[in-house]
Amino acid sequence: MKVIADLCVVPIGVGVSVSKYIAACEKVLEQAGLKIELHAYGTNIEGDWDAVFAAIKRCHQVIHEMGAPRITTTLKFGTRTDRNQTMAEKVESVEQKLNR
Amino acid sequence: MKVIADLCVVPIGVGVSVSKYIAACEKVLEQAGLKIELHAYGTNIEGDWDAVFAAIKRCHQVIHEMGAPRITTTLKFGTRTDRNQTMAEKVESVEQKLNR
Amino acid sequence: MKVIADLCVVPIGVGVSVSKYIAACEKVLEQAGLKIELHAYGTNIEGDWDAVFAAIKRCHQVIHEMGAPRITTTLKFGTRTDRNQTMAEKVESVEQKLNR
Amino acid sequence: MKVIADLCVVPIGVGVSVSKYIAACEKVLEQAGLKIELHAYGTNIEGDWDAVFAAIKRCHQVIHEMGAPRITTTLKFGTRTDRNQTMAEKVESVEQKLNR
Repeated sequence: MKVIADLCVVPIGVGVSVSKYIAACEKVLEQAGLKIELHAYGTNIEGDWDAVFAAIKRCHQVIHEMGAPRITTTLKFGTRTDRNQTMAEKVESVEQKLNR
Repeated sequence: MKVIADLCVVPIGVGVSVSKYIAACEKVLEQAGLKIELHAYGTNIEGDWDAVFAAIKRCHQVIHEMGAPRITTTLKFGTRTDRNQTMAEKVESVEQKLNR
Repeated sequence: MKVIADLCVVPIGVGVSVSKYIAACEKVLEQAGLKIELHAYGTNIEGDWDAVFAAIKRCHQVIHEMGAPRITTTLKFGTRTDRNQTMAEKVESVEQKLNR
Repeated sequence: MKVIADLCVVPIGVGVSVSKYIAACEKVLEQAGLKIELHAYGTNIEGDWDAVFAAIKRCHQVIHEMGAPRITTTLKFGTRTDRNQTMAEKVESVEQKLNR
């Protein structure tokens, strides 16, 4: 089962600047061979369900190992059986209707 | 690794009433032996990481098998290494400060 | 326009324990006269759109005034034009299908 | 109060293809003069709190007017008082740590 997801990991108890933890999570996702796209409020991920969720688990483990005692994550994810669709196609589908 | 989560599954392409799909997902979570608590905009889940995410995957599978061609889910989840905390304790901690 | 929402406010940069900030937010919502229901990963809110969003803005203001330099919030919210539906009815609708 | 948000609007009861509704929402956000950035699972928005939330309300109104009887939205949003930060700076901050 393929999944497209949007991951937003928030380390708590490490002060106000969290970008180094986010960067560590990006590396985990890349090393997992997933298609990813960083944006201003999270990271889009495309891949096989098990690979995506194994990488997300690894993100939590790595961020805890870096010293964050608490993490709260917001994840959106979608699956569909009617057709295959990539992240790029989702964006294009909206862009077309905007005549961009 | 223990996780507390809040799951909100939205089947798309099956009309405006989605409660039978949510009910099917509740059954999946119960049968997985997880502690769950249904609320008006999702379901709180407490359990071991792998058990929680295996059950969530099964929810998507079951809802697709029921005929929903597309599902979008919003999931919040938290882990902590500083101490063990249950769903009930999270609520109590806020209630106490409200002198309820 | 009526809205049912699920609010999860996360103060950042104030350490690992955040319940006093959540409690302050609960008071804001109560004082706004909204129907609310605290759960283990947020608070369900039911009310008129403008009243709900004014209260959420006030929550951010109050939590900043308490000293939190940064807040990240996850909010789910739903509107419908086909029928009126309360938070309680949303839960009942699923419970019925589970024969509870 | 400035806010950076991530908006994901899901019309329900209009079938499996929802991109025309998302496109209508993009137009609303643009016409409101907000900085926006479409991605594969939502739209990043940067602007003044009141302008951002007025535009989001207008999105729900417009999508209902187009015929969608039900909408469920997931919104993440962040405010900070310690410093001003743009969407671009949030991404750069992570990219730097990845030596991109």
